Amino acid sequence: MRSNPNASTAGSEFRISGNNGISKYPAKSHARRIAEGIKSPDGVIVLEGEHKAYYAHSDQARHFRQDRYFYYITGCNEPNCKVTYDIAKDKLTLWLPRADPARIFYDGRGSTPEEAMEKYDVDEARYLTPATSTREGRPESLTFMLEAHKRASQKIWCLKRQDILQASLMDSFLLKNAMEACRAVKDADEVALIRKANNISSKAHLEVLKNLRHLKSEPEAEGIFLGTCITHGAKEQAYGPIVGSGPNAGILHYNDNNEAFGNRQVLLIDASCEWQLYAADITRTMPLNAKNPGHWPSKESETVYKAVEAIQEACIKALGPGKRFINANWLATHMAIDALLDLGILKGDHMEIFHQGTDRAFFPHGLGHHLGLEVHDMPPPTGQEMRFWAKFDFAGQHAAFAAEYALQRQALPQFLEIPERWIENNFGLKQSVSMKPCTIESPPLEPGNVVTVEPGIYFNKFILDTVYLKDPQHKRFIDEEVLARYMPVGGVRIEDDILITEDGYENLTGALKGEDMLRAIRGEDVEL
Amino acid sequence: MRSNPNASTAGSEFRISGNNGISKYPAKSHARRIAEGIKSPDGVIVLEGEHKAYYAHSDQARHFRQDRYFYYITGCNEPNCKVTYDIAKDKLTLWLPRADPARIFYDGRGSTPEEAMEKYDVDEARYLTPATSTREGRPESLTFMLEAHKRASQKIWCLKRQDILQASLMDSFLLKNAMEACRAVKDADEVALIRKANNISSKAHLEVLKNLRHLKSEPEAEGIFLGTCITHGAKEQAYGPIVGSGPNAGILHYNDNNEAFGNRQVLLIDASCEWQLYAADITRTMPLNAKNPGHWPSKESETVYKAVEAIQEACIKALGPGKRFINANWLATHMAIDALLDLGILKGDHMEIFHQGTDRAFFPHGLGHHLGLEVHDMPPPTGQEMRFWAKFDFAGQHAAFAAEYALQRQALPQFLEIPERWIENNFGLKQSVSMKPCTIESPPLEPGNVVTVEPGIYFNKFILDTVYLKDPQHKRFIDEEVLARYMPVGGVRIEDDILITEDGYENLTGALKGEDMLRAIRGEDVEL
Repeated sequence: MRSNPNASTAGSEFRISGNNGISKYPAKSHARRIAEGIKSPDGVIVLEGEHKAYYAHSDQARHFRQDRYFYYITGCNEPNCKVTYDIAKDKLTLWLPRADPARIFYDGRGSTPEEAMEKYDVDEARYLTPATSTREGRPESLTFMLEAHKRASQKIWCLKRQDILQASLMDSFLLKNAMEACRAVKDADEVALIRKANNISSKAHLEVLKNLRHLKSEPEAEGIFLGTCITHGAKEQAYGPIVGSGPNAGILHYNDNNEAFGNRQVLLIDASCEWQLYAADITRTMPLNAKNPGHWPSKESETVYKAVEAIQEACIKALGPGKRFINANWLATHMAIDALLDLGILKGDHMEIFHQGTDRAFFPHGLGHHLGLEVHDMPPPTGQEMRFWAKFDFAGQHAAFAAEYALQRQALPQFLEIPERWIENNFGLKQSVSMKPCTIESPPLEPGNVVTVEPGIYFNKFILDTVYLKDPQHKRFIDEEVLARYMPVGGVRIEDDILITEDGYENLTGALKGEDMLRAIRGEDVEL
Repeated sequence: MRSNPNASTAGSEFRISGNNGISKYPAKSHARRIAEGIKSPDGVIVLEGEHKAYYAHSDQARHFRQDRYFYYITGCNEPNCKVTYDIAKDKLTLWLPRADPARIFYDGRGSTPEEAMEKYDVDEARYLTPATSTREGRPESLTFMLEAHKRASQKIWCLKRQDILQASLMDSFLLKNAMEACRAVKDADEVALIRKANNISSKAHLEVLKNLRHLKSEPEAEGIFLGTCITHGAKEQAYGPIVGSGPNAGILHYNDNNEAFGNRQVLLIDASCEWQLYAADITRTMPLNAKNPGHWPSKESETVYKAVEAIQEACIKALGPGKRFINANWLATHMAIDALLDLGILKGDHMEIFHQGTDRAFFPHGLGHHLGLEVHDMPPPTGQEMRFWAKFDFAGQHAAFAAEYALQRQALPQFLEIPERWIENNFGLKQSVSMKPCTIESPPLEPGNVVTVEPGIYFNKFILDTVYLKDPQHKRFIDEEVLARYMPVGGVRIEDDILITEDGYENLTGALKGEDMLRAIRGEDVEL
């Protein structure tokens, strides 16, 4: 039940088995990798799991969602637990709450230490309190835990927003950086879990496609999607499902999912389940066409879909070890501008539009994000790297990229200009976790990274009316007559999850898209 | 858009319509009824809705669930709002957060004051902050709100666990009592919402029955149930669904719902959706019988089901205005003892068993609870009433009940003894909201109460082994040989939602049970 002491710190060889033959989540391997990142010969890492809590003025428990940092180092999805990792001793201890015997029949109970040793890849599992105590006062718990380690005076690492420890004890920056560096590089076990989440989610997307011709509303589609995930054992969605028809497909985080299809042209479903806390993140956009199911109901919807499809395919191919995600994002942006010019929605000069940022009226988000224990997973740390990237030759990089792209499309030489908007504000979303791989300071991709690739083109009346068509600097690039024909399309986004491998990438998402998707809607035989 | 000033404080006449013809939730009527309960000519009620929050170390929003007290007086299911009710002016004001324009495209936004006036039954809707302010500091918000009322020095009522106000300003006891008294008596609008939640949940139960012969596991059944609710527009479950087969049916709050049926005998589904925040609460137990679907697989499962069915039918008939819920609970307890004696699982003297409480090994919970904005809804207040009920002739009441029951079944005269366990501890669960209608101090039922009736008989190995079969005082009443035959049944519970009316009661739950349930499983035509 102990992890193999001879194993290296890399990937899948850490997959170990309990006596019952069930594979365990590689918690110990994660603890060791984190300790390597901290670069300290001793000290104790202390992390606290999520507590069971109740809604105010209610006897109903809040939805329990385990703290991801805690899970990463324990594999334990139970409430009210803590964990310590003694670096010098290489000893990982899971601390469990004692159940109240009077409440077990009503509330159930967590694992006993014996059960925890069977389930989790830890060296030791103990109760948080001595047998004589029935309460788990937090300061007492800490003292108790640290006494067990006989290292109370030594260095202790924990994370902010965990109230078990006083600030004076914390060195959260180092630990957070080390954990983010580890989490960004998935081992084989983690990839397997993301793959499984993808497989179930893809089945749920397929179930919607197969039934689409009979559906009349967003909630019907959402019901099929969620029901299918649960049926396959995936109870938790990785994020609030977006099931938007027509104009609702143009609202980025639409989640009302309560409208009838009417004569709308497309249905956008951005929905995926978790598998053992690991997320998938898949978006599909499909035609709504009562008269001719499985065919695009208009030239406009078809051309927008195909434009987004082409962007997504090109961007996926642009990924690989050592490549930088921002290059793919640049590619998406320039291809979107070209597509919108081709459609006639945009008019004028490519680079003028780019510098003005008018394309953001139609493609206002980044190309993707890391994926793992969070749907917007922790990116690799930029704290140390910031100093490096601050000196990075951004202008030169973009110039090189632009020259290559211009060559491919025989575009104009002004493509080589430096786009200030990228330097200035990285979309103005520098702080957002979900934007991290798209920023200029993000390090190059490496094997084990899992990122989404999700370009989109949207026709959002609110954003057009209140921002872009109001501003002469943008309005001059938009052909409102052409745009009016495209408004009913609402929006198209296509999103897959990409694993970076040693020699390129692997698309983990099997959900049908393109022609296969249309065939599934038509009721033809398809395979996932 | 204002409520009718001439309307009385009773029921359905408060149903009002906005200009768009859509019925509004009767918030103003609720505010007035609460103010009547407080019995003050002036002062301001201040309540805070639930805030939008994020999981620790994550960019994912916590599941949003509106505070039920806030909703009761606003009908508003949006985050970060507040409400004031100026009693003297009879003025209900909803306070809304200002959206951050930079985030609207990504996060959406709440209602504007104009939209809120259309949607909600309030006199006024305003932003929480002056136009010049973009932040909503909480103390500033309070000052701002109270200045608007020009009543800062007057009496203010709010509830505990809402951090907008300092304790010095609160008089939560009076307000809480007044709100609980109101909430326990549902008006016609609230009954309609509970009815709708019941109707959708009943459809979901039916969908499981129709598919049961094809199902092989708990998650498949749960997927159908939840998918059907969502398909019908009910996104939120009223509580964590319990989908337990065989032994899992005997675990009261089982919610893993992840096991295969194998050759288990029954499937217990305790699951219901919400409709506009109002809960249904329905349990059905059905036979698993691969060879002969829609028939009980054993004599044991059939007899236990029929025993619980008989108890439920009798208890429902025992309800009505002026009746006390505890009488129905007594009836359930005595009928369960009789049934277990008939089956041979219990042996010995009825009243000895009752006094010893051995029946609780098999029926360990109360008969039901109030239902409304919470699945375990607030019961009427007992604070004031406690003094009355303390003097209540409990012994005489039970004696009268017992005499009547004994007469019906020609039982022994010792039935008339006073059962100490009821006096002492009300199941030891006096403090639990969900037990309140079952306690001796609970006031008699009145029209507008909605309560569940959910008797059950369970065979829980853990509780039997660790408590009842270990204790000679219980063990002597249990025939272990007979019990062994019943253990595989796991458990049976049947639960309906009952509205107390002027002249009796109405069962709001249409989900099939008994013979109709079996016919649905067999694929015969059934009607909800």
